[in-house]
Amino acid sequence: MARVSQEHLDARRRQILDGAALCFARNGFHATSMQDVLKEVDLSAGAVYRYFSGKEELIAAIVGEVLGSVRDAFEGAAKQSPPPPPDVLVGAVLGRTLATRASLTVDGEPAFPRLIVQVWAETLRSPELAATLRDGYSAVGEGWMRVVEAYQDAGMMRADLPAEHVVRTMIATVQGFVAQQPLLGPAPVEVLQNGLRALMSMSAPHKEARTDQGSGLNGSQLG
Amino acid sequence: MARVSQEHLDARRRQILDGAALCFARNGFHATSMQDVLKEVDLSAGAVYRYFSGKEELIAAIVGEVLGSVRDAFEGAAKQSPPPPPDVLVGAVLGRTLATRASLTVDGEPAFPRLIVQVWAETLRSPELAATLRDGYSAVGEGWMRVVEAYQDAGMMRADLPAEHVVRTMIATVQGFVAQQPLLGPAPVEVLQNGLRALMSMSAPHKEARTDQGSGLNGSQLG
Repeated sequence: MARVSQEHLDARRRQILDGAALCFARNGFHATSMQDVLKEVDLSAGAVYRYFSGKEELIAAIVGEVLGSVRDAFEGAAKQSPPPPPDVLVGAVLGRTLATRASLTVDGEPAFPRLIVQVWAETLRSPELAATLRDGYSAVGEGWMRVVEAYQDAGMMRADLPAEHVVRTMIATVQGFVAQQPLLGPAPVEVLQNGLRALMSMSAPHKEARTDQGSGLNGSQLG
Repeated sequence: MARVSQEHLDARRRQILDGAALCFARNGFHATSMQDVLKEVDLSAGAVYRYFSGKEELIAAIVGEVLGSVRDAFEGAAKQSPPPPPDVLVGAVLGRTLATRASLTVDGEPAFPRLIVQVWAETLRSPELAATLRDGYSAVGEGWMRVVEAYQDAGMMRADLPAEHVVRTMIATVQGFVAQQPLLGPAPVEVLQNGLRALMSMSAPHKEARTDQGSGLNGSQLG
């Protein structure tokens, strides 16, 4: 009996979080009222306030979940050994991120990427949320540093450029592509993967920067 | 006399827009009140309402300016002929974007990247703003398509991958890096440029995807 009850509580909590996430994805955190949330989840105020004391607690729970999901996607992808090349790695993160709560949609398009953009905006207003995001980035960054150093140690990538710059750049491609989903319209993971493959295929990268390597046209270090 | 007066009007309008931009960058569009703006610009309500009918008109003016500045940065960079390599191109866009209204700061850090994230969040709530953003992207995309096609025609980049995927990817790197500035802390343009140079230097990109090229380890097509 107790187990069923806990399941019920968990399911009800999930129902509230999903309904609130939809509202926030649709209209942002500040233009959404608790009334909007109650209407979306079709529960009484009493039923909802049993789980969350108010909008601020609901926002904190949802921002925490979103940041956690994104962090898990980045950390999970970096655990493969040997690490896959950047296009595959970034594709794995992105695939997992875009699959998160994929059943939640706004106007027929995935709600989660919209929610991520709203979470970023909200994070900028809150030192606590900003600290959570930066902690997550630090943890993710360690694993990704090892990946980039593995590329460099294997001679697959120029080793004279700081690994942390490559990490920040790879993460930026994912973040930018996620933001594009609601801003420009959804695009599949393959779009970013193809774009990265094309960049990775480039020869003659910016000769001026290659002071260590003479004047070779070819950017590859194996070849 | 008329000219001085117009200059005065313009300067006053600029003062209001800058003060409001600071408030919105600091606290988002919805948690900022007109009282916050009046306090920031140190003008009376009457003085401000002579220029803007209310918060919605102020938001629209600021979102329009921000989207216009970002669009100009992307369009300007793509006009160079022959086009510079991706790291230089992206560096130019980013440098120009980060230099926009650089005198406006929040807690000692540039306000403009914060404002961009808030603008994205606001854009998701408004079909009109979303249309403005997508129009800008379409216009920018045309110029960037020509750049990528020039890379491909010159044999500098794999030509078997859709140019529009490369465009979307390059733009994503800029967008993600801009979002990182307030979320993770400011980083100079060189960080993204180094990251791109490292990716562009890679050999052995994901062999499975290279069905057109046999089993060569080297991703370069010139070499």
